[in-house]
Amino acid sequence: MFVSVPPSDLHQHLGGLLLTEKGADVVFDVGGQTFAAHRCVLAARSPVFSAELFGTMMESDPAGVVHVQDMEAQVFKALLYFVYTDSLPKTEKADEEDDVMSQHLLVAADRYNLERVKLICQEKLCGFIDVGTVATILTLAEQHHCHGLKKACFNFLSSSANLRTVMATEGFKHLSRSCPAITEELIAMLVNDS
Amino acid sequence: MFVSVPPSDLHQHLGGLLLTEKGADVVFDVGGQTFAAHRCVLAARSPVFSAELFGTMMESDPAGVVHVQDMEAQVFKALLYFVYTDSLPKTEKADEEDDVMSQHLLVAADRYNLERVKLICQEKLCGFIDVGTVATILTLAEQHHCHGLKKACFNFLSSSANLRTVMATEGFKHLSRSCPAITEELIAMLVNDS
Repeated sequence: MFVSVPPSDLHQHLGGLLLTEKGADVVFDVGGQTFAAHRCVLAARSPVFSAELFGTMMESDPAGVVHVQDMEAQVFKALLYFVYTDSLPKTEKADEEDDVMSQHLLVAADRYNLERVKLICQEKLCGFIDVGTVATILTLAEQHHCHGLKKACFNFLSSSANLRTVMATEGFKHLSRSCPAITEELIAMLVNDS
Repeated sequence: MFVSVPPSDLHQHLGGLLLTEKGADVVFDVGGQTFAAHRCVLAARSPVFSAELFGTMMESDPAGVVHVQDMEAQVFKALLYFVYTDSLPKTEKADEEDDVMSQHLLVAADRYNLERVKLICQEKLCGFIDVGTVATILTLAEQHHCHGLKKACFNFLSSSANLRTVMATEGFKHLSRSCPAITEELIAMLVNDS
């Protein structure tokens, strides 16, 4: 009535810490772009960062720089933003780019065991499922153990019209070759539905 | 529908960091009790910690221990918990102890410029206002610039019966001596109400 307590501003404060780099004690090199960060924050958020930065697997070079392989700089940057703020940076990108970004982020989130951002990516990707994308998304879901996203893809493919169109795509050929178990699950679904 | 994203777990992760002390790089000594913490987290949350831990005023002794004067260990402990989690530790204390703890925490929050916990303490103290406590709480509100809490006290004192009882207490005598401006404001209120 006389005092109103505003919502938590912890994520804003940590977002500021990432931005100012105050007290940063680790530098990541991702494809030539460098990012300063705080080891304790990373370790608090991800068991993989914790092992990498505090364990015996500490993988920095003599200058204390950690080299991140097989990841685009902008993906690592978004991941770092999430680690500090628990949300993803706002993008003004076209849908298609956002779709691809979400796929890359999901892979990165799986790598660092960041379960919540993995779920955020899955939720986003559910909205991108169509005849052109479902095979790729389903491959990704299978490879990175995304239960909900896989369900959404199967739901889309439970329409015979969708499945027929998708089966003619290159993506589907790739899917059936890289994840044969998925093709079997599809057959099982069709048998059960008929 | 297929994927549900849980609420933010940033505060839980940082709470875990405080508990495990992983990568801690500063130790506070408060009345003989020591607390390990992370300088970057403290600096991100409080401009006072930031100046104390990264500025030229760095006040640690040669062993890197920062001595905190004029504060009880349990108050500092609760403050630290708030810094990491944006909430106060659950207490099973009697009301009276919680009242006193909230007063001490408010003073500490003001000292470290932690605005949100200051508001949380104000909100709690609003619930403790009665004829026995209002003078002390009002003194505190005046000394630490707590606008909302001060308003709540004045609202309580706008009842003549309450004011009459309170004026007979020791606390009121202390208030009128340490904050004469408050007595003037009370008179102004009475004149305006009559």
